[in-house]
Amino acid sequence: MIASLTIRTPGPGLHEFTGRVAEVVAASGVAEGLCTVFIRHTSASLIIQENADPSARRDLERWLDRLVPEGDPLYSHTAEGPDDMPGHIRAALTATSLAIPVMNGGLTLGTWQGIYLWEHRRGGHSRSVVVHVS
Amino acid sequence: MIASLTIRTPGPGLHEFTGRVAEVVAASGVAEGLCTVFIRHTSASLIIQENADPSARRDLERWLDRLVPEGDPLYSHTAEGPDDMPGHIRAALTATSLAIPVMNGGLTLGTWQGIYLWEHRRGGHSRSVVVHVS
Amino acid sequence: MIASLTIRTPGPGLHEFTGRVAEVVAASGVAEGLCTVFIRHTSASLIIQENADPSARRDLERWLDRLVPEGDPLYSHTAEGPDDMPGHIRAALTATSLAIPVMNGGLTLGTWQGIYLWEHRRGGHSRSVVVHVS
Repeated sequence: MIASLTIRTPGPGLHEFTGRVAEVVAASGVAEGLCTVFIRHTSASLIIQENADPSARRDLERWLDRLVPEGDPLYSHTAEGPDDMPGHIRAALTATSLAIPVMNGGLTLGTWQGIYLWEHRRGGHSRSVVVHVS
Repeated sequence: MIASLTIRTPGPGLHEFTGRVAEVVAASGVAEGLCTVFIRHTSASLIIQENADPSARRDLERWLDRLVPEGDPLYSHTAEGPDDMPGHIRAALTATSLAIPVMNGGLTLGTWQGIYLWEHRRGGHSRSVVVHVS
Repeated sequence: MIASLTIRTPGPGLHEFTGRVAEVVAASGVAEGLCTVFIRHTSASLIIQENADPSARRDLERWLDRLVPEGDPLYSHTAEGPDDMPGHIRAALTATSLAIPVMNGGLTLGTWQGIYLWEHRRGGHSRSVVVHVS
């Protein structure tokens, strides 16, 4: 089964959509298999991170912002705005696809794991994510 | 086929478990297919790296330790210990899932590739890994 | 279906091979499924990045070269040349495997996404990539 999800991001940072992926897995009827999540963009990415304390996610966002800042004189690709090139680099350092086994009809995520879309552009965007379950 | 593995890590660093994954592939009886390895934690991660010279793995560990040190004043998430937040960041920069095609009943790893669990916490831990073969 | 591709890289940097992967998907006859791309090396890696403006890729290459330079006194693994250890680290920060859903007989890549092999060694190499479609 394949489903296309549209995830609206209000701005930069980590946006959880574990529930949306779990719904696709449930709808697929697959009891044992594999769920793949793929993002169709290069300035937003995917990540599995701690879903409990929001301070962990905030620190992660701030850390990557500092490692890959806007306005680095190294950038020549600046025509699409100061947040575009850092967005591509941040996406390259995280994930474009995630693969999560399915058992007993559900995702085998650990207790503290959530699935996040990491928006790297400043403004709000509508992001396209494909979920495959087999 | 799905198998849950428990990997005991004596402490931080790269721990090879290629043999454990290969056993699951052999037990599955799959001749041609796909093997997916997934770690159910956010302060330990997965990586495929050189399995020959241990100095390459040691340098990799030391490099990431330096890039993401303990005690960074940026961290606000410190309640779970000084090694927790760097653990989350190091996990975010490496992988939560790996996908390796299977051919002739075995993993298609290159000659110098091994599958490693990267423990990012200080102490010894018992880590849960799911292996799916189809 | 599994296919082994040989990708010749003239030197370091991003080399697109989206067309080669798309050919394997077309040959497989799979209308809806999953395509997995796996690289059998630890000093070259895979990445999905912007396929439009070459300046974005050049900036990405230069950024990673600066983050993981040659000649870092941290390295002890130097026997295979000054470009070997940075190659392993750069590979660890990017991807060894990519998973891309297939719909209507084709890859579900976004408009601006291309599949790249990132050569991290100085010279030209012959790299082995496995493509699995199911």
